[in-house]
Amino acid sequence: MARIVMKFGGTSMAGIERIRAVAERVKKEVDAGNDVAVIVSAMAGETDRLVQFCREASSLYDPREYDVVVASGEQVSAGLLAIMLQSMDVTARSWMGWQLPIKTSEAHASARIAGIDTDILAKAIEGGQVAVIPGFQGMTEEGRVATLGRGGSDTSAVAVAAAMKADRCDIYTDVDGVYTTDPRIVPRARKLAKVTYEEMLELASVGAKVLQTRSVGLAMKHGVPLQVLSSFEDKPGTMIVGEEEFEESEMEEQLITGVAYDKNEAKVTLTSVADKPGSVAHIFTPLAEANINVDMIVQNFARETGNTDVTFTVPRADLARALDVLEKAQDKIGYREISSDTNICKVSVVGVGMRSHAGVASTMFQTLADRGINIMAITTSEIKVSVLIEEDYTELAVRVLHTAYGLDSEDVPAEEGA
Amino acid sequence: MARIVMKFGGTSMAGIERIRAVAERVKKEVDAGNDVAVIVSAMAGETDRLVQFCREASSLYDPREYDVVVASGEQVSAGLLAIMLQSMDVTARSWMGWQLPIKTSEAHASARIAGIDTDILAKAIEGGQVAVIPGFQGMTEEGRVATLGRGGSDTSAVAVAAAMKADRCDIYTDVDGVYTTDPRIVPRARKLAKVTYEEMLELASVGAKVLQTRSVGLAMKHGVPLQVLSSFEDKPGTMIVGEEEFEESEMEEQLITGVAYDKNEAKVTLTSVADKPGSVAHIFTPLAEANINVDMIVQNFARETGNTDVTFTVPRADLARALDVLEKAQDKIGYREISSDTNICKVSVVGVGMRSHAGVASTMFQTLADRGINIMAITTSEIKVSVLIEEDYTELAVRVLHTAYGLDSEDVPAEEGA
Repeated sequence: MARIVMKFGGTSMAGIERIRAVAERVKKEVDAGNDVAVIVSAMAGETDRLVQFCREASSLYDPREYDVVVASGEQVSAGLLAIMLQSMDVTARSWMGWQLPIKTSEAHASARIAGIDTDILAKAIEGGQVAVIPGFQGMTEEGRVATLGRGGSDTSAVAVAAAMKADRCDIYTDVDGVYTTDPRIVPRARKLAKVTYEEMLELASVGAKVLQTRSVGLAMKHGVPLQVLSSFEDKPGTMIVGEEEFEESEMEEQLITGVAYDKNEAKVTLTSVADKPGSVAHIFTPLAEANINVDMIVQNFARETGNTDVTFTVPRADLARALDVLEKAQDKIGYREISSDTNICKVSVVGVGMRSHAGVASTMFQTLADRGINIMAITTSEIKVSVLIEEDYTELAVRVLHTAYGLDSEDVPAEEGA
Repeated sequence: MARIVMKFGGTSMAGIERIRAVAERVKKEVDAGNDVAVIVSAMAGETDRLVQFCREASSLYDPREYDVVVASGEQVSAGLLAIMLQSMDVTARSWMGWQLPIKTSEAHASARIAGIDTDILAKAIEGGQVAVIPGFQGMTEEGRVATLGRGGSDTSAVAVAAAMKADRCDIYTDVDGVYTTDPRIVPRARKLAKVTYEEMLELASVGAKVLQTRSVGLAMKHGVPLQVLSSFEDKPGTMIVGEEEFEESEMEEQLITGVAYDKNEAKVTLTSVADKPGSVAHIFTPLAEANINVDMIVQNFARETGNTDVTFTVPRADLARALDVLEKAQDKIGYREISSDTNICKVSVVGVGMRSHAGVASTMFQTLADRGINIMAITTSEIKVSVLIEEDYTELAVRVLHTAYGLDSEDVPAEEGA
């Protein structure tokens, strides 16, 4: 007998028949003797519809009222799942964010969970009741409805699991797990049975959009074992756990866990930046003040002129704002020209195994060079090496790296011949 | 400067452009220096959609969870109207039923309002803020969401108006007021400028479905002046007030205020009921126990046999249950045969003026007799005379009575020639 949190996303809740299938999965866990809390997203398309209403009402909508509107989608899902469970003779009731309460910060529309009162929840669950909780929503100290930002239901699920000291938090979604890379690019991509929190964080933040990054960080902090699995197929997914859950042999055997890519960055280059103290600070301070995240940075020093070219990446969505900020600061920074490029992609290899193995980066550089792929920038962390390349080479780069690190599955997928 | 509650129904809230028009009306009252609270229904069609979800999830849905689902429709409307008002520089915020709170009974899906905490509301309104409140919803003592049953937003509006000691409660709807009868049947029907609570109750309960009956009773109890008016046209509607608001001359001048009809009843006849003590009780006690309202009752005594035929009406929706109950009680009641008829209609003339005038009933009977319309049963109250007739004669009866009591408008409506 275990205590389990199950989270179902929008596609899993899209319509009454899918909600029935969700209820059947929940019933199975209950019948197996487990204590269960369920976190649900709004029915697919519902949040978009509600957001659209707010935008049409006013382009400058009050986020506090926006939260009132959009939180209703999860409320509907929670009530319907409770009804469906009861119809299967499973004792269940819904608990809104404000009823438990799930306490949040005051940052409406992108609130953070500040804490969850577990008294009610613990009593309900110990009484054999399935608690159905709308994801994405909570209540501020002032007593207003707040939402956690898009994808926030994953975070709700992990927070509830942490508060309940759950044995596992299962995230049911429309993919059946975490893969070594995007199977649409590499048909020989393999589903991972286990991955560490750290690796998942790197894979998520570089574009493997299976889980909201915040939820992985929260699970790591509280040591909540996560599982990503399919709502539509009845088979195990990918476990996301701490390194201590791995045998030493497992860690050593796999140098690289996955290859990720991210096409959402843009490259900015400033030429002939004066080589004087503070000039680099003059570039990045105004960007930080404008809330623009800078990712990769490369500085090329030209000894003969004493000048430097500085290249860095920002999110594509922020490029126009970044250029505006930098143009306004031209005098202060003292650069000659500014240029930008969105035809780029960041490709990363991720794996905790690289800590104990040298040569991961050089394998990457050599593999790409062999295919004539030019590297524009490099950034590394303890468990990741990322390179910036021309966007057109993305698929080729991912494919050759997947092979180079021995990640290709031996099974030839059925579709491959097509 | 006055304190006003404005209530907008589903058709008034159907889509962003209509919500904009609602906000403009609210702004007008605010600009005129009035303190305003607004009660809103769900967008047209929304409640039906949510009810349908619940039914599809389970035919025996838990009303507590049903309430969680359907209350979300009004929540969305309230948030959107608050956003729209703010975009017009009107200070506004939404208050959910659980936030004020609007306290209700535990009768989920058809709860009654037990009380409204006015602290928050008074503070908000005195601070110059428009309070936008979802209708139809409140919170039980246990802290769960409850709804008031279909049409409950009218009751929410009156309850808020009573709690706030509002000068007026304006019910905006898709008709522009209360008419002397159904204008679809009588093109010369006139819009009433003023009507008493008692008359409105009789008109509503006999089929003039402009306002929820409960809301009129509540307004009468608390002396809240109600106004029914159109969301789509900018002109005065019908005031619903106490008799003390009428001049004596107004009361005397108008004998009859309106003619109403109700096709939702069915007639049941039991023949040869034994004429012994308690036999009539044996008919109506089991019906009352089954929660079936009996309306008109006629008893025909046949002196020679010592037997009696008993005829009465019940709501059409309850007819099958009523017959079932009575068949099971046949031995106890001791009747020979049971028969029923749904091809009937109740037509009523209503007016406080009839208290001081004799001859209202005889005018009615004579007018119908002149047209060969047979009266099957009669029931009267202090301000109403109702007759049961064959359904096919409904329109004719309404039209001739409207003329007989001098209610026809002198203006020939433009459409009449068509």
